[in-house]
Amino acid sequence: MSIRLLLSGGTIDKHYKMYNGELMFEESHIREALEQGRCTADIVIQPVMLKDSLDMTEADRELIAQACRESAESRLVITHGTDTMVATAGVLARQGLGEARTIVLTGAMVPYIMKHSDALFNLGCAVMAVQCLSPGIYIAINGEVFSWDNVTKNLDLLRFEALN
Amino acid sequence: MSIRLLLSGGTIDKHYKMYNGELMFEESHIREALEQGRCTADIVIQPVMLKDSLDMTEADRELIAQACRESAESRLVITHGTDTMVATAGVLARQGLGEARTIVLTGAMVPYIMKHSDALFNLGCAVMAVQCLSPGIYIAINGEVFSWDNVTKNLDLLRFEALN
Amino acid sequence: MSIRLLLSGGTIDKHYKMYNGELMFEESHIREALEQGRCTADIVIQPVMLKDSLDMTEADRELIAQACRESAESRLVITHGTDTMVATAGVLARQGLGEARTIVLTGAMVPYIMKHSDALFNLGCAVMAVQCLSPGIYIAINGEVFSWDNVTKNLDLLRFEALN
Amino acid sequence: MSIRLLLSGGTIDKHYKMYNGELMFEESHIREALEQGRCTADIVIQPVMLKDSLDMTEADRELIAQACRESAESRLVITHGTDTMVATAGVLARQGLGEARTIVLTGAMVPYIMKHSDALFNLGCAVMAVQCLSPGIYIAINGEVFSWDNVTKNLDLLRFEALN
Repeated sequence: MSIRLLLSGGTIDKHYKMYNGELMFEESHIREALEQGRCTADIVIQPVMLKDSLDMTEADRELIAQACRESAESRLVITHGTDTMVATAGVLARQGLGEARTIVLTGAMVPYIMKHSDALFNLGCAVMAVQCLSPGIYIAINGEVFSWDNVTKNLDLLRFEALN
Repeated sequence: MSIRLLLSGGTIDKHYKMYNGELMFEESHIREALEQGRCTADIVIQPVMLKDSLDMTEADRELIAQACRESAESRLVITHGTDTMVATAGVLARQGLGEARTIVLTGAMVPYIMKHSDALFNLGCAVMAVQCLSPGIYIAINGEVFSWDNVTKNLDLLRFEALN
Repeated sequence: MSIRLLLSGGTIDKHYKMYNGELMFEESHIREALEQGRCTADIVIQPVMLKDSLDMTEADRELIAQACRESAESRLVITHGTDTMVATAGVLARQGLGEARTIVLTGAMVPYIMKHSDALFNLGCAVMAVQCLSPGIYIAINGEVFSWDNVTKNLDLLRFEALN
Repeated sequence: MSIRLLLSGGTIDKHYKMYNGELMFEESHIREALEQGRCTADIVIQPVMLKDSLDMTEADRELIAQACRESAESRLVITHGTDTMVATAGVLARQGLGEARTIVLTGAMVPYIMKHSDALFNLGCAVMAVQCLSPGIYIAINGEVFSWDNVTKNLDLLRFEALN
C-alpha cells in the first residue's frame, strides 16, 4: 500500500539554528523520524514547502492541494503546522480531494528535535490512519482521528478536539 | 471511543537497572510515553504482567486472553515482546476473541528509555489502528498493520513482514 | 568544597513555549541537568535572572557581579548566554572579583531541552573547572577552559577560541 | 594541550543489541558524545578494549597500564566501568604512572545511548579535570574528582565517595 507524505513544515519539523538561537526551517527531519520508527511502509516523501502554518497563504494551500491532486498515490499524509491545519484540511475538502483519496494531516506541539517531542507518536498515528481509513480528509493527532469538518484546536489546552 | 491497553512487557517497556547494569522490568513506561505523545484518547491501562516474551508460558498467554475476555472495552491494545507476539496473537484468535473485539498487539525493537527508540512511533500506530479497524486480531508495528495469521518476525532484518 | 551556581539564562536554559512555538525562558533546567549528571558536588543554585545574553544590560551584569561579591562560596559557576559571556567575564574581572574567587562561566550552543544538546557536557566541564582552578575568571566550554582575557566566540565556527 | 583518551568499555559505552535485546559492546559511542559536547580540545581516542569492568582481568589492566606508559601525551582520560574503576586506578598508581602523567578515569551509571544518561556530564568532568590537575591518578565522576587512593563506589547509593 503506497503512501505519499507531503511536507509542508510546522512545529513538527522545526530546526534549531545555532547562529541566531531561533527555531526555523532548514531540512526536514521526517525521514529521520520514520527511520527511528523503523517504518517499513512504502512511503514517498515529497517536500512541498517548509513553513510555519501561520505564515501560509492561500497560494501555499493551493500548492498543497495541487500536490494531492497530482499524487499517483491515493493515500496521503501531510505534515503541517497545527495553527492552520484545520483551514488547510477545509481547502482540500472543498476541492473534493477527499472523494477518492484518504488524506491525513498531522503535526506536533513540540518539535521532533526536542527531547519530549510528540512528533514520533503523531507520525505513527498518521501513517496508520492513512492505511486504515476510507477516502476522506482527516486530522490525526493526540492519539485521535478527526474528520476535517468536526475538529478545532483548543488554544488554551493546546490539543485538538471534536466540535460535537 | 474507549480503549483498554494491556501491558505484558517486552522490549518496549524494559527498564535499565543501575544496580546490575541489565535491562529488566520494573515499572511500565507506557503511561509516560502516552503523555509524551500528548495522547488524549480515552485509554485505560491495565498491567497484566511485565515479561520478556521469550519467557512467556501458555499460562501467561491465558492471562492475557482472560484480560481481553473480561474487558469492558471492545478495543484493546496489547504491548508485548516482539519474539512471541505472533504466538500470543494466535492464541487470542483461536479463542475467538477477535470476533467482537478489535485487538492490536504492538511492541518495539528498542526500549522506550533509549534515545533512538521506535516505541513512541509504534504506540501511535497501535492506538490509531485499534480505533480504525473492524473486529479482528492485528499486529501494528514498523508503520504497518498485519492480520494475526499473515505475519512473521524476520529475525535477520528485525522487522515484521506479511507471509504472503 | 561548596560551589555557588548563578543562573543568568542563555541558550543552555531556554524553554520551549508551546503556546507560541518560541524558545523563551520560564523555569531553569539546570537542576534537572545536574540530577541527570548524578552530580553529588555541594552546589547551591541561585537564580539571578533568565535572559538571552544579547538582551543583558550593564545593570544586569552588575547584578551578576553583586551576586558574586555577596557569595559565601568562593567558587562560582555562572550559566550564561554565549554571545556576551566574554563581556560579563570582563566586567567581573575588572571589579577584581577573580582575586579571591574562582569564577567559571559556561553556556551552550544548543538548549538542554534538545536531543543533541551540549549543555550537559559543558556543565560537567564548568563544575570540574571551578573545583580545580585557582582564583580567577574563566570560561569553560567546548571541552576547554579559557582565561577571561584570552577568549573570543568565533561567530562563523560557533565555538570559543583563545585569542593567542 | 593534547589529551589521549583510552577506551576500555564500561556502562558508559554499552550498546543495545537488537538481535538479543541485551546491552553489549560493539562500537564505542565516545566520539559521538564528544561531538555532541562540541568538544574542540585536542583529543586522540585510542580503543584498548571494550569490556564490562567486572570481566576485566589483571592482563586487561596491564594493557591499560601499557597504553598509558606508551602514550606520547602526558594527559590521559580513561573511560572505564565503574565497578572496578578504583582497582584499575590502583594498578596504574602502583606502577608509578601518575608521577609524570595526569590520568583521569571516568565512566557512567547509565549508558550514553539512554535518554537520561550521565555519560556526557561525566565526560565533561573528565576532559576538564585532565587539563586542570597536576600529575596523579584521579577518578572524575558525579561532578567530583577523587584521588585514586581516597575513593570508593558506594554500592547502595550508586555513587562514588571519598574514604575520608
